Amino acid sequence: MTAAYDPNNIFAKILRGEIPCHKVYEDDAVLAFMDVMPQSDGHTLVVPKSAARNILDASAEQLAVLMPVVQKIARAVIKAFAADGAVVMQFNEEPAGQTVFHLHFHVVPRYEGVPLRPHTGKMADMAVIAAQAEKLRAALA
Amino acid sequence: MTAAYDPNNIFAKILRGEIPCHKVYEDDAVLAFMDVMPQSDGHTLVVPKSAARNILDASAEQLAVLMPVVQKIARAVIKAFAADGAVVMQFNEEPAGQTVFHLHFHVVPRYEGVPLRPHTGKMADMAVIAAQAEKLRAALA
Repeated sequence: MTAAYDPNNIFAKILRGEIPCHKVYEDDAVLAFMDVMPQSDGHTLVVPKSAARNILDASAEQLAVLMPVVQKIARAVIKAFAADGAVVMQFNEEPAGQTVFHLHFHVVPRYEGVPLRPHTGKMADMAVIAAQAEKLRAALA
Repeated sequence: MTAAYDPNNIFAKILRGEIPCHKVYEDDAVLAFMDVMPQSDGHTLVVPKSAARNILDASAEQLAVLMPVVQKIARAVIKAFAADGAVVMQFNEEPAGQTVFHLHFHVVPRYEGVPLRPHTGKMADMAVIAAQAEKLRAALA
């Protein structure tokens, strides 16, 4: 059922440097950057640099390089934002909530008593996102 | 912030065989079984056999053995239940929705136009769950 990888998806453009992002972590195989429509303060995305539509067509190698970074980011958001927990989410295909068709893991900090923001489709204040990225980079350093 | 691992959590009891489960996959390091309070038909859980509270204290090895099974289950639920997609979710600490404190990944099939069921705390019909487990085992075979 999985369609082919579309190299014009927005994360592919970010990976090619055609669109900017608020980067928090990068290695040879993985990039992590702030979600610009965060469901909570510190919402971060972790993506492989190589092409995969989602977990259904991902390689074992892609999962192997991603998960240590997902873990690192989960620990770091809790530290950086004094979060009370974190949710890791990964959506496969549109009926499951996938909107960008490049494999990505969401790391969403959770705060006691604070519900997740709904997806409004509106971008956050970029100065706020930039400040959060800086905090998160410091926690990762 | 992460508390110690409690060996009396319900998944530890399942792993020790003290509580039954509807098993769909097992290897030396990983067990997958049906969620008995499914948010959608085919909702499956993937856990390491070794102790970890959640992703915050998980070892690299635990993540390395879990993710190929998470992927296998995601592909299999789509095949077994003709799902239109699947969500992978993993909760860390109570404010993030974690209720059982043994590391686990949820694989939740999604069906076009069908919202997820809320967590009611009520167990599903075990005959239905058993039949779903059988279907899923067949898709994995």
